[in-house]
Amino acid sequence: MKKIINEPGNVVREMIEGFIAAYGRHYRMLENENGIVRKDKKDKVGIVIGGGSGHEPLFIGFAGEGLADGVAMGNVFAAPPPNTVLEVTKAVDAGKGVLYLYGNYAGDVLNFDMAAELADLEGIRTRTVRINDDVASAPPERIGDRRGIAGDVLVFKVAGAAAEAGLSLDDVARIAQKANDATRSIGVALSPGTIPSSGKPTFTLAEDEIEFGMGIHGEPGIRREKLLPADELVDKLMEPLLADLPFVSGDEVVVLINGLGSTTLLELLIVNRRVAQVLQEKGISVYDTDVNSLCTTQEMGGMSITLMKLDDELKHYYDQPAFSPYYCKRKK
Amino acid sequence: MKKIINEPGNVVREMIEGFIAAYGRHYRMLENENGIVRKDKKDKVGIVIGGGSGHEPLFIGFAGEGLADGVAMGNVFAAPPPNTVLEVTKAVDAGKGVLYLYGNYAGDVLNFDMAAELADLEGIRTRTVRINDDVASAPPERIGDRRGIAGDVLVFKVAGAAAEAGLSLDDVARIAQKANDATRSIGVALSPGTIPSSGKPTFTLAEDEIEFGMGIHGEPGIRREKLLPADELVDKLMEPLLADLPFVSGDEVVVLINGLGSTTLLELLIVNRRVAQVLQEKGISVYDTDVNSLCTTQEMGGMSITLMKLDDELKHYYDQPAFSPYYCKRKK
Repeated sequence: MKKIINEPGNVVREMIEGFIAAYGRHYRMLENENGIVRKDKKDKVGIVIGGGSGHEPLFIGFAGEGLADGVAMGNVFAAPPPNTVLEVTKAVDAGKGVLYLYGNYAGDVLNFDMAAELADLEGIRTRTVRINDDVASAPPERIGDRRGIAGDVLVFKVAGAAAEAGLSLDDVARIAQKANDATRSIGVALSPGTIPSSGKPTFTLAEDEIEFGMGIHGEPGIRREKLLPADELVDKLMEPLLADLPFVSGDEVVVLINGLGSTTLLELLIVNRRVAQVLQEKGISVYDTDVNSLCTTQEMGGMSITLMKLDDELKHYYDQPAFSPYYCKRKK
Repeated sequence: MKKIINEPGNVVREMIEGFIAAYGRHYRMLENENGIVRKDKKDKVGIVIGGGSGHEPLFIGFAGEGLADGVAMGNVFAAPPPNTVLEVTKAVDAGKGVLYLYGNYAGDVLNFDMAAELADLEGIRTRTVRINDDVASAPPERIGDRRGIAGDVLVFKVAGAAAEAGLSLDDVARIAQKANDATRSIGVALSPGTIPSSGKPTFTLAEDEIEFGMGIHGEPGIRREKLLPADELVDKLMEPLLADLPFVSGDEVVVLINGLGSTTLLELLIVNRRVAQVLQEKGISVYDTDVNSLCTTQEMGGMSITLMKLDDELKHYYDQPAFSPYYCKRKK
């Protein structure tokens, strides 16, 4: 796979430099760590997000107004080192504590937990909410083992608004946890992405084959099948997705149709057409929808469907404005 | 190439239905034509954009506040039929005339010109500005033959703001033409996209080969070379790009680094890093930058660099807010 890069070992740093070259009006980068923070530091709870690089615009594109305050980035598909998380934490802390939000992967858990201990030694209080929206990654009885995928975006959105509103660390953490608990995703892979350092695909799939529930680093999914027409594919994904929370008639949801990299917006919109039909048939109303490639796996083909079930509190915070170069929401 | 679609012949209509299912709060679709229009119709000059589908989020994602009022869509890589353009024109006209903005391709020229004649018969005055930012598509002495690529976005942005400000049709057309005349792009292809109806790639390139100046439908470029490191590639693209207008020391520009589909944001940001370095070395200052995949060719690999040279008038309109699901700008 051809990539437009320089030194494969330097892609994350150069990416951050390119981001700051574009958006340095709003963000600054840390000198010795792969992290960025908002320039308009506010007197509020700080939110630090992060994880492996390679999923852009996640995570780098989700600091901003009503979103995160800082982003800690690891190498491609690798957790950020504890010291990166710590330095971002120190940069965003305004004395009101810092909330860590990240997808539930072993390496991230380890490193963010270590950073939390180090932050504690520096007198910075932290709380952690791990996002585990991927229903295909473990059965309901092992929900704590589930991984985080595109649902990250909705949790960042809600938590960011709660922090921006001036809530306490415990309240922001409570609302973030509630957003996570109300969010479910399921995805399908069509073709692999490649890691810049190796140039090799993360997995292989036959030309007519797809894999349900494959993870965003190529983690094994539930089963392989032949490629289906879009509507049939959506129906097969919606069934376990709706059953999981469950989402039922009378519920109100936010929808995110997320592309994994090379699946086109044309396809994602066709997916959303059927998702909206299914939700209407089930008596589930849609408060808001986004269709975009926000949590990618390099040029991986495929997509995921995310639903977040709203209550009045989640809706209130979801409805606040948000602004970053890659995610923009205005009040309804 | 696997695509998540239903009937290949129905992808555009289903895409529009999916778009309205997501964003129907702000847009409505025409009943019998593949067009969408803003719901918040205003007492101002209307702007109709359009072209072939398959380049999403262009064109469907560029109607909105401070942007276009209506979008006429053809089949994938095919111009919208005159009647589609006409019906969108009628839907957006508020009695102050309608400006057509589209990339300079023979089919689009033919069909928008026919629509303009039909609109005239209905008493709607139209003006047309064709976007021809692609410096690789014809030499300077045949500048009128050049094609429109990602520069479309910047022309839409400026013209949309001028219309939103209440200017006359002639003034909006003049400013759009000025924006186009100040805009240049150059691109490079790494891998082909596929047309949904055929499932076939639009061209072939060897595994280590790239093509400079290839068009967004696979039109032949200037030359093929071996894949280069990102910085060298950018340097090779910037030279003819800067020389063309020319852009010189003391100029102020807007930069758009555009991905063609499957080239990742990580790569695009690395490209921007070097573009910013080159501009700084040349004494050209950057007013604003966007790095995103806005004008795509399905899952084609590659990217383009666009520069728009600002004067006070263009800067004023560029700086106004814009909002659509895929393009969002706030006042600086």
